[in-house]
Amino acid sequence: MAGSFCFPQAGERYREMIIVLKPEADGAVAKEILEQIERLGCRPLHMPGSERVVLGALGDERVLGTLHLENHPMVERVQPILSPYKLVSREMQPDDTVVKIGGVPIGGGGFTVIAGPCAIESLEQCRATAMAVKAAGAPLLRGGAFKPRTSPYSFQGLGVEGLSYLQQVSEETGLPAVTEVVEVADVEAVEKRAAGFQVGTRNMQNFRLLRALGRSQKPVVLKRGMAAKMDDLLLAAEYILSEGNPNVVLCERGIKTFETATRNTLDLNAIPYIKERSHLPVIVDPSHGTGVRELVTPMALAAAACGADGILVEVHHDPPNALSDGAQSLTPEEFETLIEKLEPVVNAVNKKMTRCRSI
Amino acid sequence: MAGSFCFPQAGERYREMIIVLKPEADGAVAKEILEQIERLGCRPLHMPGSERVVLGALGDERVLGTLHLENHPMVERVQPILSPYKLVSREMQPDDTVVKIGGVPIGGGGFTVIAGPCAIESLEQCRATAMAVKAAGAPLLRGGAFKPRTSPYSFQGLGVEGLSYLQQVSEETGLPAVTEVVEVADVEAVEKRAAGFQVGTRNMQNFRLLRALGRSQKPVVLKRGMAAKMDDLLLAAEYILSEGNPNVVLCERGIKTFETATRNTLDLNAIPYIKERSHLPVIVDPSHGTGVRELVTPMALAAAACGADGILVEVHHDPPNALSDGAQSLTPEEFETLIEKLEPVVNAVNKKMTRCRSI
Amino acid sequence: MAGSFCFPQAGERYREMIIVLKPEADGAVAKEILEQIERLGCRPLHMPGSERVVLGALGDERVLGTLHLENHPMVERVQPILSPYKLVSREMQPDDTVVKIGGVPIGGGGFTVIAGPCAIESLEQCRATAMAVKAAGAPLLRGGAFKPRTSPYSFQGLGVEGLSYLQQVSEETGLPAVTEVVEVADVEAVEKRAAGFQVGTRNMQNFRLLRALGRSQKPVVLKRGMAAKMDDLLLAAEYILSEGNPNVVLCERGIKTFETATRNTLDLNAIPYIKERSHLPVIVDPSHGTGVRELVTPMALAAAACGADGILVEVHHDPPNALSDGAQSLTPEEFETLIEKLEPVVNAVNKKMTRCRSI
Amino acid sequence: MAGSFCFPQAGERYREMIIVLKPEADGAVAKEILEQIERLGCRPLHMPGSERVVLGALGDERVLGTLHLENHPMVERVQPILSPYKLVSREMQPDDTVVKIGGVPIGGGGFTVIAGPCAIESLEQCRATAMAVKAAGAPLLRGGAFKPRTSPYSFQGLGVEGLSYLQQVSEETGLPAVTEVVEVADVEAVEKRAAGFQVGTRNMQNFRLLRALGRSQKPVVLKRGMAAKMDDLLLAAEYILSEGNPNVVLCERGIKTFETATRNTLDLNAIPYIKERSHLPVIVDPSHGTGVRELVTPMALAAAACGADGILVEVHHDPPNALSDGAQSLTPEEFETLIEKLEPVVNAVNKKMTRCRSI
Repeated sequence: MAGSFCFPQAGERYREMIIVLKPEADGAVAKEILEQIERLGCRPLHMPGSERVVLGALGDERVLGTLHLENHPMVERVQPILSPYKLVSREMQPDDTVVKIGGVPIGGGGFTVIAGPCAIESLEQCRATAMAVKAAGAPLLRGGAFKPRTSPYSFQGLGVEGLSYLQQVSEETGLPAVTEVVEVADVEAVEKRAAGFQVGTRNMQNFRLLRALGRSQKPVVLKRGMAAKMDDLLLAAEYILSEGNPNVVLCERGIKTFETATRNTLDLNAIPYIKERSHLPVIVDPSHGTGVRELVTPMALAAAACGADGILVEVHHDPPNALSDGAQSLTPEEFETLIEKLEPVVNAVNKKMTRCRSI
Repeated sequence: MAGSFCFPQAGERYREMIIVLKPEADGAVAKEILEQIERLGCRPLHMPGSERVVLGALGDERVLGTLHLENHPMVERVQPILSPYKLVSREMQPDDTVVKIGGVPIGGGGFTVIAGPCAIESLEQCRATAMAVKAAGAPLLRGGAFKPRTSPYSFQGLGVEGLSYLQQVSEETGLPAVTEVVEVADVEAVEKRAAGFQVGTRNMQNFRLLRALGRSQKPVVLKRGMAAKMDDLLLAAEYILSEGNPNVVLCERGIKTFETATRNTLDLNAIPYIKERSHLPVIVDPSHGTGVRELVTPMALAAAACGADGILVEVHHDPPNALSDGAQSLTPEEFETLIEKLEPVVNAVNKKMTRCRSI
Repeated sequence: MAGSFCFPQAGERYREMIIVLKPEADGAVAKEILEQIERLGCRPLHMPGSERVVLGALGDERVLGTLHLENHPMVERVQPILSPYKLVSREMQPDDTVVKIGGVPIGGGGFTVIAGPCAIESLEQCRATAMAVKAAGAPLLRGGAFKPRTSPYSFQGLGVEGLSYLQQVSEETGLPAVTEVVEVADVEAVEKRAAGFQVGTRNMQNFRLLRALGRSQKPVVLKRGMAAKMDDLLLAAEYILSEGNPNVVLCERGIKTFETATRNTLDLNAIPYIKERSHLPVIVDPSHGTGVRELVTPMALAAAACGADGILVEVHHDPPNALSDGAQSLTPEEFETLIEKLEPVVNAVNKKMTRCRSI
Repeated sequence: MAGSFCFPQAGERYREMIIVLKPEADGAVAKEILEQIERLGCRPLHMPGSERVVLGALGDERVLGTLHLENHPMVERVQPILSPYKLVSREMQPDDTVVKIGGVPIGGGGFTVIAGPCAIESLEQCRATAMAVKAAGAPLLRGGAFKPRTSPYSFQGLGVEGLSYLQQVSEETGLPAVTEVVEVADVEAVEKRAAGFQVGTRNMQNFRLLRALGRSQKPVVLKRGMAAKMDDLLLAAEYILSEGNPNVVLCERGIKTFETATRNTLDLNAIPYIKERSHLPVIVDPSHGTGVRELVTPMALAAAACGADGILVEVHHDPPNALSDGAQSLTPEEFETLIEKLEPVVNAVNKKMTRCRSI
């Protein structure tokens, strides 16, 4: 049967599948499925066992997908053998991608710190915090104008007004800024005023938003969903790349587990796991990944040690009066100490701190 | 100090908080915080302990919120005493809310089955499935036109074309239909063509979408996020009610856990828990809550037994050829059997199956 | 190559494995592994793909296990195709096992309630609660003498003295009793005084204890570990059966998840899942599965509806003064109401309540 | 009422509790509970709110515990304010404990590597691996003789024979060894032959075993349970200390989450969290915490960077032929590289690698 197999062409997505039949499936079922596979020009494989019949199929995944074998009443399980993502994978591109945000590189031997307030509260707060970020030597600014909040009664962000403050402060300090976008309708407004987009944990699978960002050329910091597997994060990035935007920075920010002492469980396993599979840069958010100020610095050091390309960290010039996430924000002094402690760890793993561009 | 306390007015949201100070906090810190609380017209309370000082505060939560005590460097923890939701709570409205979708009631003594295909694939598929749903006696139709899919290479739904098929089939069969909305920009299109909105698990905290639905008067089936606590679901519903739309049906659909034998872990504890705290109707989606066809019927019966007001279930006239979720879709025959098995359980808990309206 | 394959003999455990090679593995690696498999008398299979080579192996699992292919540097992944348990599986024994505890059957068409205090606190407390259990019509008693407690400063149970009280009350009321065993050294003492063993969630993988119980003929109620997959529970039961004791009752009691409103998340999906795969009876513990008194009754009804063979429920004649788990214990009145509500649901799924034996 | 309060005496365990009453509780209920608290010589506190009455209590926790207020029908919730552990806490002992295993220190400025095979398979394997461990410069050996395995059909360890091999190799190489103990009955045999005990994840809450180890003076490496919160781990250690053995080393080894790409999710947040609360040394097991050979080294570096006192790592002289956990074991060469990469990170956080004692 193998003779009918057409070998993969460049640019096609190939996939191998294992199909386990139910114990009650007889030879006729196996034959029917194998013929279906062959008829589509894919390669069928037969592995008769004593207790279960196992079939294999190899071919273009869009073609194989049309078979919907997982729905067949005599099929117990379909197991994919190849990973479902392609453009983000190292198999597609072996070398590290370096993403530039406003000219500042992330990935490829540097360690880049993005810092700033959780939410932009006023021009003064944004400016004071940005100056502290710059003074400590960090090259990129963050700050939220659109804030997704669990309760409708919490502060929801300043919206477009906040974006303007961020843009003004970014220009004053020379620090390019990233900011969260929560809705397709806001993509244009953010694109005009910021150097990069941030997609929050609750929107990692807002596929409409991902596609819209894929049609921009500005870089996207994509945070892992709090219930998303590492492979789900890679598939979410695949949405952006598949629309034409290769500038994606992945961000581990903690997942939901049974542990309640911390806001989330920071899954640093994700750093070496993703680095092995994907060419995209990966950074860590130790602020959300812990939710506790005292844990931010140790976990930032851990992120650097296990191979992250940078961190995204919340700093506030006056945390006790922050309108959101004050409990996990660093003061300017704490942030300066973090940077001082980071440098020797970054050097210990043969990387270099990325510094502010002079302006 | 209690003298300065202004008692709550109707319509205000009150809250009580416990503030635990760090061991190193001295009397001056306690005094400073108590005075801050009092200055805002809220009620301060002092509970000096031998190892920790504990303070209390009672007042309008928006006012208390401006204190941001969780950010204070001498504060170890702030514990809210009252639940953060209000409009959805039984304390606000003791009687069960009955939500009508196209005239069909959910809540209040009936058990209502909403059924249909995961995704609308064609007019014929939608019609054939809807007729099977109706023949079995279910009064409401479901079907997705906009499909959020983990991989960009999976079938993404027919969009507005799918909505039109659903509308046509709904008119032909007399079954009002609900359908998922994934984006603010689509609210109007869905509102025109369907009897109710469905918000999927990935959008439970798409707050912009929730607010937009709060400004509609059409009912909303709000699914629990796969990493959302029950209280997060209630807060998400609070977003919709706080914008003026009281017609919300909550839906338990399984959460992410370490168990891999099922697609999700259906958390039926949520049914009696939410029923005790909220007046909103609650239904269960045993299709996504299990991901396995054989488990759908037993879990539907369990949902009825523990007090759910209905189920949302995937049916397909030809599951082996379904374009999405075929493995968890019931055939028309299986669905008919489900309905037959459901009725005695529904009656055993003193409820009645809600039947199709005659048309 | 298939010629060398010796077909399975009765009593042997067969297994099929899929072996996925790393992208860099060449033909020589595949050849080497296939020859290793063949040399052991197992059946090798070759599925060359365009991007990955996939191999298969079929044979006695103890033989295949000696290959340790998962450790091979050129092997990416080994996927078992057949389930790892045997004696507990329906494939081994298609008919439901009925386990008798002191003559009272569990499994096979009846619904059996086991009830009593979390911990035995005194002869009086044990007697008063047992009489309430009997008065409500439940046929089996439970009560803990050895209590595993998270804190060393909590009540740890009365030990052997508690066992004696349980034995005395069991004789007085005619209700056979099960009680927890936490240590191999206690197996004999419990065996002498109780009708059945209970293995708690923290000991589900105390394999030494499981083996010891496998050498008894008294029945064992085996609770699911709070981090155990359903398949882990089945494998734990396999330990007991493999030592010669076929009298195992599985018990779903909730798993650890991110939800904090309940003590555990009761995973009722486990009931139909296990029923399909195993011939052993399965019961549900709605007391630990919720941790909240108000949720016990609704979840007991749900358990009955989805096919459980019974429940294990905490009752205390005076919950406000219980030394452990008072918050989830039912009063005698609440327990009576539970039984009254259960019966119609049990009948609705065509089962019958198992009643006390007359004595 | 405060006048009746007797201030804490040295050695007593004090606790503060917040008691939230149900909405329907009236003044009489509050008065009754406050009087109960006062009658026991504890300190009652009254915090009347507009929607809920909140009470406080302060006193010896064993006395307060006798009230069982969590069981009171009018009590909604009891919240402890102070942590439930005492002997393990920094409040009890502010300085770091240094635990010596066979004379080798763990804690207090050094970074100590414990390495060796998952299971002892033969004298030769044990010796070859130990020599590789020593050659790389690690000062402590590990190796399992009693292996808890999920399936009864997997290799279960060599038992006492394995202990003898470990003892012999330990004497030959001069590397003190730790080994797992799974049962009270084996404590003596292990104590005679090894320098320290290891308690595995499945036994973290085997309280009988913990108490037995508390009566030994040999050090105990206590691994976190896979479903245990950090505070549960500290309470488990409290069991050992409360019996008189202060030599406990805590070990983070990953928890169960929804992520399936790794065997466990290594929760490094636990390191700084526990370091802040407890004086006990904390090490990390990156082998079980990832389950994937390629991730072991990066996560070992991360552990060092965030403040761990050492690591416990699986090494095998021939991983492809390991009888258990081969997929996560390092080869001697990989282990040597790990040590080389570790040193600069350890130095970057101002610690020093602990080296072999000369013998």
